[in-house]
Amino acid sequence: MLEKIDLSKTVDKERYKAVRDEVGARLGVLQRECKAAGIPVIIVFEGMGAAGKGIQINRLIQHLDPRGFSVYASSRPTEDEEMRPFLWRYWIKTPANGRIAIFDRSWYCRVQRDRFDGIIDEGDVAGAFQDILSFEKQLTDGGAVIIKLFLYISKEEQKKRFKKLEESKEASWRVSESDWKRNEHYDDYLQINEEMLERTDTHEAPWTIIEATDKNYAAMKVLTTVTDRLEYELAKRREEAAGKKKTAASIPNERYKNGVLSGVDLTKSLTREEYKEKLDKLQKQLEILHSEIYRLRIPVVIGFEGWDAGGKGGAIKRLTSHLDPRGYQVNPTAAPNDIEKVHHYLWRFWNNVPKAGHIAIFDRTWYGRVMVERIEGFCTEADWKRAYQEINEMEAHMANAGAIILKFWLHIDKDEQERRFKERLEDPAKQWKITDEDWRNREKWDQYEEAVNEMLVRTSTTYAPWIVVEGNSKYYARVKVLETVVDAMEEKIKEVKRKKKGKG
Amino acid sequence: MLEKIDLSKTVDKERYKAVRDEVGARLGVLQRECKAAGIPVIIVFEGMGAAGKGIQINRLIQHLDPRGFSVYASSRPTEDEEMRPFLWRYWIKTPANGRIAIFDRSWYCRVQRDRFDGIIDEGDVAGAFQDILSFEKQLTDGGAVIIKLFLYISKEEQKKRFKKLEESKEASWRVSESDWKRNEHYDDYLQINEEMLERTDTHEAPWTIIEATDKNYAAMKVLTTVTDRLEYELAKRREEAAGKKKTAASIPNERYKNGVLSGVDLTKSLTREEYKEKLDKLQKQLEILHSEIYRLRIPVVIGFEGWDAGGKGGAIKRLTSHLDPRGYQVNPTAAPNDIEKVHHYLWRFWNNVPKAGHIAIFDRTWYGRVMVERIEGFCTEADWKRAYQEINEMEAHMANAGAIILKFWLHIDKDEQERRFKERLEDPAKQWKITDEDWRNREKWDQYEEAVNEMLVRTSTTYAPWIVVEGNSKYYARVKVLETVVDAMEEKIKEVKRKKKGKG
Repeated sequence: MLEKIDLSKTVDKERYKAVRDEVGARLGVLQRECKAAGIPVIIVFEGMGAAGKGIQINRLIQHLDPRGFSVYASSRPTEDEEMRPFLWRYWIKTPANGRIAIFDRSWYCRVQRDRFDGIIDEGDVAGAFQDILSFEKQLTDGGAVIIKLFLYISKEEQKKRFKKLEESKEASWRVSESDWKRNEHYDDYLQINEEMLERTDTHEAPWTIIEATDKNYAAMKVLTTVTDRLEYELAKRREEAAGKKKTAASIPNERYKNGVLSGVDLTKSLTREEYKEKLDKLQKQLEILHSEIYRLRIPVVIGFEGWDAGGKGGAIKRLTSHLDPRGYQVNPTAAPNDIEKVHHYLWRFWNNVPKAGHIAIFDRTWYGRVMVERIEGFCTEADWKRAYQEINEMEAHMANAGAIILKFWLHIDKDEQERRFKERLEDPAKQWKITDEDWRNREKWDQYEEAVNEMLVRTSTTYAPWIVVEGNSKYYARVKVLETVVDAMEEKIKEVKRKKKGKG
Repeated sequence: MLEKIDLSKTVDKERYKAVRDEVGARLGVLQRECKAAGIPVIIVFEGMGAAGKGIQINRLIQHLDPRGFSVYASSRPTEDEEMRPFLWRYWIKTPANGRIAIFDRSWYCRVQRDRFDGIIDEGDVAGAFQDILSFEKQLTDGGAVIIKLFLYISKEEQKKRFKKLEESKEASWRVSESDWKRNEHYDDYLQINEEMLERTDTHEAPWTIIEATDKNYAAMKVLTTVTDRLEYELAKRREEAAGKKKTAASIPNERYKNGVLSGVDLTKSLTREEYKEKLDKLQKQLEILHSEIYRLRIPVVIGFEGWDAGGKGGAIKRLTSHLDPRGYQVNPTAAPNDIEKVHHYLWRFWNNVPKAGHIAIFDRTWYGRVMVERIEGFCTEADWKRAYQEINEMEAHMANAGAIILKFWLHIDKDEQERRFKERLEDPAKQWKITDEDWRNREKWDQYEEAVNEMLVRTSTTYAPWIVVEGNSKYYARVKVLETVVDAMEEKIKEVKRKKKGKG
């Protein structure tokens, strides 16, 4: 979830203050409403050291009635806590109905710091995740709202902040040896955090990543995340009480408006000559890798999503043109047929899971659930909200069985799409590619962009990453797709050979 | 879940035929209703070898329209299946809406046979459970009904059946070497099955244990379980569609009517002399064990439940009278107070989790959720149905932290209760013990008995067993409680010392 995050995000002071005042006032009202409705609220602050958890908690509580919340800072367990099961110290701090409990670090230390420091055996990590998931599910099933925030800064930013703290007489004690150790091994520690986020980003209690380089930006995002979520949960409960079936509370959610896609550099391009040369080389590599993949029995899943006319077809063509047709299959995904319609939405994709040693290419994928089905209302809100976790679980299962999984988002901008649509209309050989639906989808560009941004963050995992492909230049896009596939195959082949050697 | 099962259950032929004809006809109707409602139904048959899965499936499908179901027998994975992720072969067989899929053995082989045979690494077992839980949750979240049946016979019965099969010319091929191996190591294999049942007995897809010694009895229970469940699920969906909040479909459920309690031998008793002698010895042992428990930092949780006037107070008194008061605490559980009421129902018990080395005794417990709260309607049906899993998770967390957990059900019959009630009324020193509520609860004896039977089966685990105490004789009951505690402490102390030695 972290690699799709743009840490350079900032906000200017004027806008920050305006949002703070307006949204902050809303939050005060929501706190009273939650109190009246008897909803216990739990807000978890986790993140990298010196990411500013203390500051952010402080800013957040400015908007809250102090009689209604408690802040708990986790430090080393006390003697009393050491003598009880790990979750005890958190269970007893769960808030009463109508109250807010804010945790500065939490039960996640178990699968984060304790894991990094080797305090917990690797063999016990799976059990600890299970305990955490059960704990949160019990609380949300009991009516609680859990908001989990992960404050994220880069290695360099962290180093800078540690140094600044050390230089200050009053604050130097705040930086410990273990802080520096975690900075030194930043990537390892980040990997542990990434796994934590992936395994605990549930439907009931999702994570939100807070870009924390700019403190004002972070404060704004914390505030709007908490506020949006409480509004959503209150609306959901109101609808449920009124006996409505769909909980389609359409809350203004700005969080994913300026997301991953807005940071994509669409000027990237290649000349025809560069393209020809690279393509030729890559296709030959791919041919060799394909046979090795087959020999080593590695299954490969490659998904293509992207804007209409984003270049999926062209990329798939270049990807497959030199492959042995007995070793791959392209699965086009249209609207589900009658048989597919009466099965679980993931069933038709399970049917096309590749055999070990084979490549399955999907032209559009299971991600339709969180894009078109979400936007067109083909499923309920509960359905698509649950789907992020379901999809991650499916991909994890395949990855655990040894599969390479890559997902490409072919990205173009709105002008480029219009140009391509018109070009197609003018070319008799391509007219069939353009339908009325394409124009209708285009009108919903902003809605789709929001959905895609959320999808990219919530389903890009270490074992099944999303690759956003800068697609205004078709040459550039195709080469990037092929390069990514080649790299991933080379890496996996190395890994498999290493393991075989280890065993043999 | 298995040790509370009475394998001697039988049914006479007349009654079996009557039930079969009546309930079977209902099942046919329900199949059509499920088809009309578009509900996919999955029925899983697991169990010990030769428990009669084939026969039972055959009997069940007699009542079904053959156009509406498929039976899948799991054997060794095919070459095609071997080359795909483990769950693939089951995913693609999930039924379409309105259809029934019956699995003769299933995805559970992964955490059962494969585990026993060492085909799956012990390190991968936790992940396999996670995969199975996700798989089932995705299906039930998507609207499917999953009915899981475990056919259970004893080691002796299994041996008898294997021999009989071997003697038959036509059937001898059915008994393999691995079958005999599993019979020989019956207890080890049972332990693996027990863990499987405990870890996957979820709210969404609960297990039902089928006593399979008597084939007619088993067939009757399979039939009523499937029928009851489909009726329940159809009613639930109708209520949800009608926008009702509580899904309190009160389905006639006979399954737990003649359960564990009906098999308890209440004639067991001790003379006053035997009692005095044993009690004295046990209390002295306990005194010594208590200090060892303290020294080794073992936490102990002892829960008491039982009929009103069942003798909880007297048993607790004898249990504690020789203990160092600094090392134990008795927590009486009354109706929740104002602060407890506005927290999660488990919160007040978490607050009383004992420190390592201490004993926490609960006079009535968290099991109120699935008894009084269930019967008096103090929580919704969804709440108490979810509670079995929640309670098992809580106890597992404590057990993993090293705790001894014992739960006593003090059992008396209705006549004995009346005798004791009257005795109390006549004794001025005991009059306060009897309230109007006691008489009201007595009127609901049958409802309670059903709830207790279900509780005993679904929450008696290897790590936190229920002990049903034959309580008509107070002497016998008190001695049994103390003996059980002494045995459990001795065993745990040995285990802890062994582990320390191993490390040291």
